[in-house]
Amino acid sequence: MFKINDNYLKLPGSYLFSTIARKVSAFQEANPDKQIIRLGIGDVTQPLAPAVIDALHAAVDEMAHAETFRGYAPDLGYDFLRNAIADHDYRQRGVDIAADEIFVSDGAKSDSGNIGDIFSVDNKIAVCDPVYPVYVDTNAMAGRTGDYIEDKQSWSNVIYMPCTAETNFAPQLPKETPDIIYLCFPNNPTGSAITKNELQAWVDYANKNGSVIIYDAAYEAYISEKDVPHTVYECEGARTCAIELRSFSKNAGFTGVRLGFTVIPKDLKCGGVMLHSLWARRHGTKFNGAPYIVQRAGEAVYSEEGQKQTNEQIAYYMNNAKTILTGLKEAGYTVSGGVNAPYIWLKTPDNMTSWEFFDHLLEHANVVGTPGSGFGPSGEGYFRLTAFGSYENTVAAIDRIKKM
Amino acid sequence: MFKINDNYLKLPGSYLFSTIARKVSAFQEANPDKQIIRLGIGDVTQPLAPAVIDALHAAVDEMAHAETFRGYAPDLGYDFLRNAIADHDYRQRGVDIAADEIFVSDGAKSDSGNIGDIFSVDNKIAVCDPVYPVYVDTNAMAGRTGDYIEDKQSWSNVIYMPCTAETNFAPQLPKETPDIIYLCFPNNPTGSAITKNELQAWVDYANKNGSVIIYDAAYEAYISEKDVPHTVYECEGARTCAIELRSFSKNAGFTGVRLGFTVIPKDLKCGGVMLHSLWARRHGTKFNGAPYIVQRAGEAVYSEEGQKQTNEQIAYYMNNAKTILTGLKEAGYTVSGGVNAPYIWLKTPDNMTSWEFFDHLLEHANVVGTPGSGFGPSGEGYFRLTAFGSYENTVAAIDRIKKM
Repeated sequence: MFKINDNYLKLPGSYLFSTIARKVSAFQEANPDKQIIRLGIGDVTQPLAPAVIDALHAAVDEMAHAETFRGYAPDLGYDFLRNAIADHDYRQRGVDIAADEIFVSDGAKSDSGNIGDIFSVDNKIAVCDPVYPVYVDTNAMAGRTGDYIEDKQSWSNVIYMPCTAETNFAPQLPKETPDIIYLCFPNNPTGSAITKNELQAWVDYANKNGSVIIYDAAYEAYISEKDVPHTVYECEGARTCAIELRSFSKNAGFTGVRLGFTVIPKDLKCGGVMLHSLWARRHGTKFNGAPYIVQRAGEAVYSEEGQKQTNEQIAYYMNNAKTILTGLKEAGYTVSGGVNAPYIWLKTPDNMTSWEFFDHLLEHANVVGTPGSGFGPSGEGYFRLTAFGSYENTVAAIDRIKKM
Repeated sequence: MFKINDNYLKLPGSYLFSTIARKVSAFQEANPDKQIIRLGIGDVTQPLAPAVIDALHAAVDEMAHAETFRGYAPDLGYDFLRNAIADHDYRQRGVDIAADEIFVSDGAKSDSGNIGDIFSVDNKIAVCDPVYPVYVDTNAMAGRTGDYIEDKQSWSNVIYMPCTAETNFAPQLPKETPDIIYLCFPNNPTGSAITKNELQAWVDYANKNGSVIIYDAAYEAYISEKDVPHTVYECEGARTCAIELRSFSKNAGFTGVRLGFTVIPKDLKCGGVMLHSLWARRHGTKFNGAPYIVQRAGEAVYSEEGQKQTNEQIAYYMNNAKTILTGLKEAGYTVSGGVNAPYIWLKTPDNMTSWEFFDHLLEHANVVGTPGSGFGPSGEGYFRLTAFGSYENTVAAIDRIKKM
């Protein structure tokens, strides 16, 4: 008799955003006249940049003719895209990452889940708390997290690093040494950032203790402050301890287009084994490359026009972030984030729990946000709003919240 | 200190097609004047159908405007595509599969590798021998296959079901009961097919023994004979024991577009747990949907025009198959396949090993094929040619082989 992976049965309830979708549907059904504004899930709303659209059309045309048709892509990505990434995201920042250390994929969610495949089950992970749920859930599926303790809303074998107002929303070096450390900066969900010096301390810690850092830099394009690093490889020694995950979803609005990449430097080894080789083997065996037309779209993001246009999109969203930040402050809320990230993190008023505030906001302002507790126990009493709506909706949402 | 997944270190050498690519490159470099014809890797060469191209352009245009822009797709696929699949591939064949039992993905290679995630490590797999390498390699990565025995070119804890001339290239029910049975029909690499009655025997066997069948039907569009089933769900009882993998790569030339789907009926359970729920959870946690524009392209395959055009592509490739089959028979080779599948499987002449014949063919005919031994120990002494080249190249390749 075949046996299932029992670890799946340990997972609590459903994925955060499914729960939110269910609640919002129910509310809309009960109140069909209400115009709900969604500042919950981190999904973009602006159309693709014209340079990207042009590249997509051109690539589609190539697929229409035998002479220019493209079948299977190279497993690890087309050179035209890997070179553009290496040049723009690394070389131009004075950072030493080669094109063949870049693995193109269908997005950072897949990569952040799949990266666990190349590690032993017998590794202890450390995560920020609150945290993007995918890191913990995928490790739970792999059997790395112990048991879920309902009371504590946390797993028995995970090192949680609280990121609250008390720690300035940054993690502190843990007492127990983790094997794998997940860091995401600029942070989802808190919108906080750390300085290059602060990140350097983590790199030094990892190298000293034989830990590997999985660094999620999906929001680097939103950085506005100078001392905030865009890549972990700005730090000395990161090539021997860090994997970086990157995405086109937020820097170019590719949430529905699906493109991302993972960087694994060849200097990152366990014993004599390069993690680069393991990931290449996984990619080559369990993945068949990102679509050609999508990789051409990714290349267009790095063109002069593409950069100008996607920077305008980011400026648009960051203007929303400012609107939310300023508006909520005026309304008396305690808020953070929104300066180097498209997320605003607020303290729920009147000691409401995160889900109480979710219901309150939905009912009284018809605005959807994300309960902080959905991201981990230390998120309780906090709430996330995103800057990814339209400007008009963002202004309207803040008006409604002010009048609440 | 972090630890890697040691199972990766047990994998022998590199992926079959990487080795071929290396050998071909070396030959081309040494013989720059030779025109190599590639009938090796199963990659299509015909351009996308006009209906698909139109759908891609239209979807790209939607992404250019805020009103029609699409962000994150539903994790499990857009309803328009799931409905088209359920209707065309199942309902119209009188087969009972609902749209919400269909999980849209970026391709059957990903799915056939990832499906292992929902099963315990403690399952014994059975595979046809020869076999598509991904099934075994991904199980090896998960730690399910024991150790690789170099001498035997096989894994210690895998049930191999020989498919040779002696078995008419079909597997026979194994003596030891497997937990998970991988079947692929029409078959890659042998090009063989089995009848509905033969498949029914496997379904009955699985239901009786508590095994699950992972049925890879990537080549169903190439079926020309009436008693060959297009889907495992044509068999009675398959809803309680079978998962089906499907692909757009071969029926619509999507190898570079990336689209596939997996069917998990809600009746397929282990204890009280639906495998459907586990895969939904995996998809929702580790995958973010196939690109919107690609899903629209998939939908167009099912339109009247799309069907007509993609059927013409298949007829084109099957004419190549006939050319190869007839030509090789005339040249005195022992061949099979090529009737319900785009693969021709030949016995190497003069007792050459598969790799000896690979080198021989590359050197003397400048034709690239795939050594049968690369697909498993029982593939030794066989060789695969594919019908996916252009007609002109296929004719030229056969001419050269005849003159060899």
